Amino acid sequence: MKLLDRLAGIAALAASAIAQPAVAQLSVKEIGSFHIGGQEVVLEGLPTREIVFTPGAPPLKVDPNGEFETGQMYVQYIRLSQPKARYPLLMWHGGGLSGVTWETKPDGKPGWQQFFLAAGHDVFVSDAVERGRAGWSRYPEVFKSEPFFRAKKEGWDLFRLGPADGWNRDPSKRQAFEGQQFPVEAYDQFGKQAVPRWATNDAATQAAYDALVKRVCPCVIMVHSQGGNFGYAAALNAPDLVKGLIVIEPSGSPNPERTEFAKIKGVPHLVVFGDYLDRQPLWGRLLPNQQKYFEGLRAAGVDATWLDLPKQGIRGNSHMLMMDKNSDQVAALINEWMVAKGLAMK
Amino acid sequence: MKLLDRLAGIAALAASAIAQPAVAQLSVKEIGSFHIGGQEVVLEGLPTREIVFTPGAPPLKVDPNGEFETGQMYVQYIRLSQPKARYPLLMWHGGGLSGVTWETKPDGKPGWQQFFLAAGHDVFVSDAVERGRAGWSRYPEVFKSEPFFRAKKEGWDLFRLGPADGWNRDPSKRQAFEGQQFPVEAYDQFGKQAVPRWATNDAATQAAYDALVKRVCPCVIMVHSQGGNFGYAAALNAPDLVKGLIVIEPSGSPNPERTEFAKIKGVPHLVVFGDYLDRQPLWGRLLPNQQKYFEGLRAAGVDATWLDLPKQGIRGNSHMLMMDKNSDQVAALINEWMVAKGLAMK
Repeated sequence: MKLLDRLAGIAALAASAIAQPAVAQLSVKEIGSFHIGGQEVVLEGLPTREIVFTPGAPPLKVDPNGEFETGQMYVQYIRLSQPKARYPLLMWHGGGLSGVTWETKPDGKPGWQQFFLAAGHDVFVSDAVERGRAGWSRYPEVFKSEPFFRAKKEGWDLFRLGPADGWNRDPSKRQAFEGQQFPVEAYDQFGKQAVPRWATNDAATQAAYDALVKRVCPCVIMVHSQGGNFGYAAALNAPDLVKGLIVIEPSGSPNPERTEFAKIKGVPHLVVFGDYLDRQPLWGRLLPNQQKYFEGLRAAGVDATWLDLPKQGIRGNSHMLMMDKNSDQVAALINEWMVAKGLAMK
Repeated sequence: MKLLDRLAGIAALAASAIAQPAVAQLSVKEIGSFHIGGQEVVLEGLPTREIVFTPGAPPLKVDPNGEFETGQMYVQYIRLSQPKARYPLLMWHGGGLSGVTWETKPDGKPGWQQFFLAAGHDVFVSDAVERGRAGWSRYPEVFKSEPFFRAKKEGWDLFRLGPADGWNRDPSKRQAFEGQQFPVEAYDQFGKQAVPRWATNDAATQAAYDALVKRVCPCVIMVHSQGGNFGYAAALNAPDLVKGLIVIEPSGSPNPERTEFAKIKGVPHLVVFGDYLDRQPLWGRLLPNQQKYFEGLRAAGVDATWLDLPKQGIRGNSHMLMMDKNSDQVAALINEWMVAKGLAMK
């Protein structure tokens, strides 16, 4: 894979990376949250429903008509008293999940939110439109399709924990890939983090992300999986505000043939991939598109680094890098990249 | 209303209450989150669907069958380096909302999460089953009914911002109650915090709350609105673990005739109500049940205080006390009550 970039510097970092203690005393200036994006929608003509709120109680009439907010996203921020990083770090989750992706690991150990706070970054963790605390709207009246729900066997396969036929309802009988870093013993706990998703809200999601960038940036954005496409597009939409883009295991990206890469010449990009990419058919199909987009970045002179963890000797990482047992090691590499790009301080 | 308790001490506190600065430097030991409660459910025999993930792309087949987690709740915790309070404070939201209730005010000012952190409490803010980051499940296959969505006009009425006929889609034409403390100019922003709800998940919600209590208590629990019933029941289910219960504008409570009040004799209770209760018909019907439950507490010798804010000279509070302009003043009163009960330190 000649596309893959193996900067000597990154290799050296991989060797020297020492996981920072993720649990630290943090001096916090402010904790808060807000919703951003979206607009009002009006529903009319729907029949009144009778709902029994408490078993045994008489039904109450509920009028489903009226004005509602839709298309907003949720953002929680933690600002440090003395941030060491130059810009706040925005963390955008992937499909079928929420901002919880960044907060916690299913084995109960601290997640990347804590890691990057401890490393001196102000951190903004968000729930995209329709996910988690962003709320969601009636369908098909407002959202234009039905939601779908990811079965645990599908996550086991797509997140590259093990072969599809290694799934078993009984946790003790599941077969993970050899050397797997994901805490597979906590996979059912991870299943509790799942939230439903729609396939028809991408435009609203991008608009909300772009509004967030306008409100809180300049910033560095870290995206995961489905968030890849939103992150790449956010940088293209506001290249002066996005000071760095960290793309963890992107599943999507803009069409490189229609991308004006010159606009983002000043935005350093880091793409990170884990292990077992050749063991899962969908990733085999997704990866070439990611490589093409990366090639477009490099051809246009964008400062872009492709961090292939196995090539750096870091093996066993799943799609959910931030939950893997060596998540601190991977986070430390990313932080070193930010230091190298002048986005963070050692 | 002879039921209402007007302890001289509380009256004096109301007069002396000085809103604490809600934005403070916090020394934080740990930030994290987890899901708790629920169980696996298996779906079988549902037809495969074709979903177009990206406009223009060919449809992908999605199998909706398999194992899913359902009935869990979400909890985020912030632990201080040096908590002053004796126990962590658990904050449980009301109906149609999520833990965001406690985090932020729609005018962007800091919410009670920050207030109580600044006052020295470790704080656990949760999203109940089916709400926010807790996720939700297919219906009618898993959840047994359809969800419903609260129109903004309904919230305007039920949350006692103004008379029902004072609602107008145009914010400049809405008529609020005179002296209203809710930041009505930010009501549409508040509308973005709404999440759908079901009427058929109460048992799962109570089970998840009870599991949370077992995991993180001894604690003090603060509940709002629909959370009232869950909080009262949680104290009854674990009276040794719930060291204090603060019930903000409860809309529900257990049936007092079937409640073993003697079990919770050691659990001090504080009930807080705002203004305009006689201006909204539903609250006129809900309030007598709340008073009956309170009467049951007092008759059994439970240390129970009913804080009627208008009777203490604090006027204009809506159902969303924690978002009102004088929210810090109300929070300070509650904190003083905790101090008086030995649950917090000045």
